[in-house]
Amino acid sequence: MDERVFSAALDEIARVGYAGATMDRMAAAAGVAKTTLYRRWPSKAALVVASLSHAFGAVEIVGDDTAAKIESGVRWLAVQLQAPGVAPAFAGVFAEAIVDADTRALLEQSFQRPYVTPLSAAMNMSGPKFLLLADIVAGTLLHRMGVSGRSMTDADIRVLVSMLVGAFAA
Amino acid sequence: MDERVFSAALDEIARVGYAGATMDRMAAAAGVAKTTLYRRWPSKAALVVASLSHAFGAVEIVGDDTAAKIESGVRWLAVQLQAPGVAPAFAGVFAEAIVDADTRALLEQSFQRPYVTPLSAAMNMSGPKFLLLADIVAGTLLHRMGVSGRSMTDADIRVLVSMLVGAFAA
Repeated sequence: MDERVFSAALDEIARVGYAGATMDRMAAAAGVAKTTLYRRWPSKAALVVASLSHAFGAVEIVGDDTAAKIESGVRWLAVQLQAPGVAPAFAGVFAEAIVDADTRALLEQSFQRPYVTPLSAAMNMSGPKFLLLADIVAGTLLHRMGVSGRSMTDADIRVLVSMLVGAFAA
Repeated sequence: MDERVFSAALDEIARVGYAGATMDRMAAAAGVAKTTLYRRWPSKAALVVASLSHAFGAVEIVGDDTAAKIESGVRWLAVQLQAPGVAPAFAGVFAEAIVDADTRALLEQSFQRPYVTPLSAAMNMSGPKFLLLADIVAGTLLHRMGVSGRSMTDADIRVLVSMLVGAFAA
């Protein structure tokens, strides 16, 4: 069931955005009762965070040194954010997390934490240093999609990567 | 009237987030009829973008060289994003803009454009270069607030500024 629900949730958000998406329509599209949905995920934010974790899956970081790993991480995230519904779901959860401590805890613990330990180790960075890198990469890519509706150009990704390598791989 | 409506809109968003905010409650809090609100701003997004433009006002960029101007711009934006309702309003409009071309056009033309020409000139950058800088600064600051609920620490702002100066003021 989960797979079908996650896909219905992201499709609904791709169509009407996070704010306009309803648990009612997500349940109908997945062919499950709304009560079933709420038993498993107590809020829209909880369902969307679970859908994002599923969509992102394991991060693929490759490369021999930190510079190559940073580039690989930026490009991996840029690809993830192009999947239908993912960028608006991510941005919508953020907007809610800013004002709601429960959503923030969910995002930090269920979505972000599983990436932080392996990635900061792989990149040989302290947790706080890695979190700043993550804020810059995810924030920049999402902001571009929000304002222009387009993914970042390859030329801009190269500027971003070279800046990050200078600051974080030194 | 505008001033009262903008303030009611951002207060409502500070309380319940962008997705949960309604034109009904914004109108009631501002003491105006909902029809009056809709005549002036045809959608929640339109009202929120106007409220953000009003809250941000003129940008204060100071400094003798591009490095000082970048630092001043980052610190100015960090302060703006701490005003009640501003960060969740900003993030909420983004989430909607990703899936909705009208919201995107509004954000790009009414909010962003008035800053781009004077700022790119002040910083002696091409438009696209300035837009990348803006994506990095605004995206990073918002992402941090979304995940941690806190503004960026001064130490992290210094890392961000020094990275941007290296990449954009060279």
